[in-house]
Amino acid sequence: MSDTIYIYDKLFDFTRSVFTKMGCSAADAKLATEVLLSADMRGIDSHGVARLSGYVRLWEAKRINAQPNIRIVHETPSTAVVDGDAGLGLVVAPYAMNIAMEKAEKVGTGWVSVRNSNHFGIAGYHAMMALRQDMIGISMTNASALVAPTFSVERMLGTNPIAVAIPADKQPPFVADFATTTAANGKLEILQRKNAAAPLGWVQTHDGDASTNASELKNNGALLPLGSDRDHGSHKGYALGSIVDIFSAVLSGASYGPWAPPFPAYVPMPSNMPGEGLGHFFGAMRTDAFRPKQEFKEHMDNWITRFRQATPVPDQQEVLIPGDPERRMEEERAKNGIPVVNSVVADIKAVADKMGIDYASLHS
Amino acid sequence: MSDTIYIYDKLFDFTRSVFTKMGCSAADAKLATEVLLSADMRGIDSHGVARLSGYVRLWEAKRINAQPNIRIVHETPSTAVVDGDAGLGLVVAPYAMNIAMEKAEKVGTGWVSVRNSNHFGIAGYHAMMALRQDMIGISMTNASALVAPTFSVERMLGTNPIAVAIPADKQPPFVADFATTTAANGKLEILQRKNAAAPLGWVQTHDGDASTNASELKNNGALLPLGSDRDHGSHKGYALGSIVDIFSAVLSGASYGPWAPPFPAYVPMPSNMPGEGLGHFFGAMRTDAFRPKQEFKEHMDNWITRFRQATPVPDQQEVLIPGDPERRMEEERAKNGIPVVNSVVADIKAVADKMGIDYASLHS
Repeated sequence: MSDTIYIYDKLFDFTRSVFTKMGCSAADAKLATEVLLSADMRGIDSHGVARLSGYVRLWEAKRINAQPNIRIVHETPSTAVVDGDAGLGLVVAPYAMNIAMEKAEKVGTGWVSVRNSNHFGIAGYHAMMALRQDMIGISMTNASALVAPTFSVERMLGTNPIAVAIPADKQPPFVADFATTTAANGKLEILQRKNAAAPLGWVQTHDGDASTNASELKNNGALLPLGSDRDHGSHKGYALGSIVDIFSAVLSGASYGPWAPPFPAYVPMPSNMPGEGLGHFFGAMRTDAFRPKQEFKEHMDNWITRFRQATPVPDQQEVLIPGDPERRMEEERAKNGIPVVNSVVADIKAVADKMGIDYASLHS
Repeated sequence: MSDTIYIYDKLFDFTRSVFTKMGCSAADAKLATEVLLSADMRGIDSHGVARLSGYVRLWEAKRINAQPNIRIVHETPSTAVVDGDAGLGLVVAPYAMNIAMEKAEKVGTGWVSVRNSNHFGIAGYHAMMALRQDMIGISMTNASALVAPTFSVERMLGTNPIAVAIPADKQPPFVADFATTTAANGKLEILQRKNAAAPLGWVQTHDGDASTNASELKNNGALLPLGSDRDHGSHKGYALGSIVDIFSAVLSGASYGPWAPPFPAYVPMPSNMPGEGLGHFFGAMRTDAFRPKQEFKEHMDNWITRFRQATPVPDQQEVLIPGDPERRMEEERAKNGIPVVNSVVADIKAVADKMGIDYASLHS
């Protein structure tokens, strides 16, 4: 069966209605929708409307507070800790990123660690907020444990993504946004739907053996850190995922490592959690805190232009700059709509029924 | 032939004499030696005394200024740009890291980008400086281009390492220090000496084909970014190496990408360099800029303890915390000395002759 195509504006109105029915304020419902659907627009389908039903279930389980009192609990001129009051990460994260940017405006850089939050959508959205003010933006989050450290069979870390957005002048910005695993879980989900095998190095069995089974997580297997195995640097991916976990959760007072709260509402919360909710970490750096802004931007143009010209492997595609594929996808989907697979369409219909929203409005 | 064993104190005196003969001040010679030999002590043999002859050749080629006027050229309360005046990176880097820590003391965090520097030894040394004040330390540097971006055959990036040091309480600190490539160049050098093959995924040929030839760089091949190939996330390693390059060199005004100055003095400097020298980037964050210091440290102990207890793969070793192998090596070498391979011993003898230092003093 072919995908259903949604037009962004219709999907936006629908999704906003869902968040409004959950009890979000008008501003929060709009913001949460914008953050969530930025994933669909940029082609990171696993993190967009596909997760809407998951957010609704977390709200039903009272793990998401639709009317949070998000607040700063500690700060210095360049840092803050934000308590998300169990709010939607989609709303808590931009709040925290704005604080990082305000601090950067005053003292050059701003760094905010967040506790008591939930899944925040794609890391890239929050990092890219900084681009609006010609700042460098950094965003990361911990997540429920699916990843085994090097030498382990136990799931100890989430896919813990890192995003870094860097402004340029005439060139589009540099936007890296990646899970600290070899492959994001969303890529496994795509293979599962196709009944296809995964490349070796993405997952391991519950005994730690190499596996090509895209459903290995259902057998208590684990995702592998970037690098796949020790010989190929998995200890580096494990270190990166750990740094994200510590900056996001140990600095803020969120729950970390294997105690990070699970996204699926049917999974019980871990016992003896050492902190509150999920954690995030955000940074903003004014480029002119280092050198004149225009000079920086022109050198970024030069950097980007030179890397685009790097000699390609014979008969392969040209070299890309981080952010290129997502930007092209965004242009394409703005024109042609967002294709959504049938299992997600069924989920969306169920959400519409549950929340008393007319599904037909998505196609009117 | 078996390795020669040097005792740290003797090697320290010898190396300090070399830097003194180069014209370094007493304080700089001592500091440069401490930084350089921290690599040998921690088992990162490629970055320690093995590079001493390389530093001497750069000094002979007048690419290293032994009496630099290192200075801040721009600053805000939380940031600075430092010009290293072509000094030894071994001296410029601690200067810059100290500024980051001073700024962190005042406003919570400090971030320093450095231009016009040279190779700074191991990234971990500088990040670990922050531990002395219970701060989190971050250190990175660009380096001469040996790494091909995903889809490219051209060497565009250095091995661009990242180090992050995080204090704990009763547990030893968390210290990650890794090249953003699948394997560091030093690992290839070890295989070359043994005439052994490299695992697939470390290097590619000049045509971009997979290769197990540990000497592939000599045939215009390239190192591969962490992840090895597109299917295993090499675009993430490429993005990481790029971020290091941009933070270290585009922010500061150093030379970046394929224009980064080469470490071997016989390699001509690139033409049309867009900046001055190598670049570094340092960060320091006060943990109590986020939450009470003792609370943070106790949670780090809990994090570390829990990760040590992660279920190991059957019949494999226990799970390690980043920094464990290097710390154990340091203890072992403090006791038993530093084994140095014969090619490096020959290099050291040549340096002794050239600088008029008695090689025998190393064994007296």
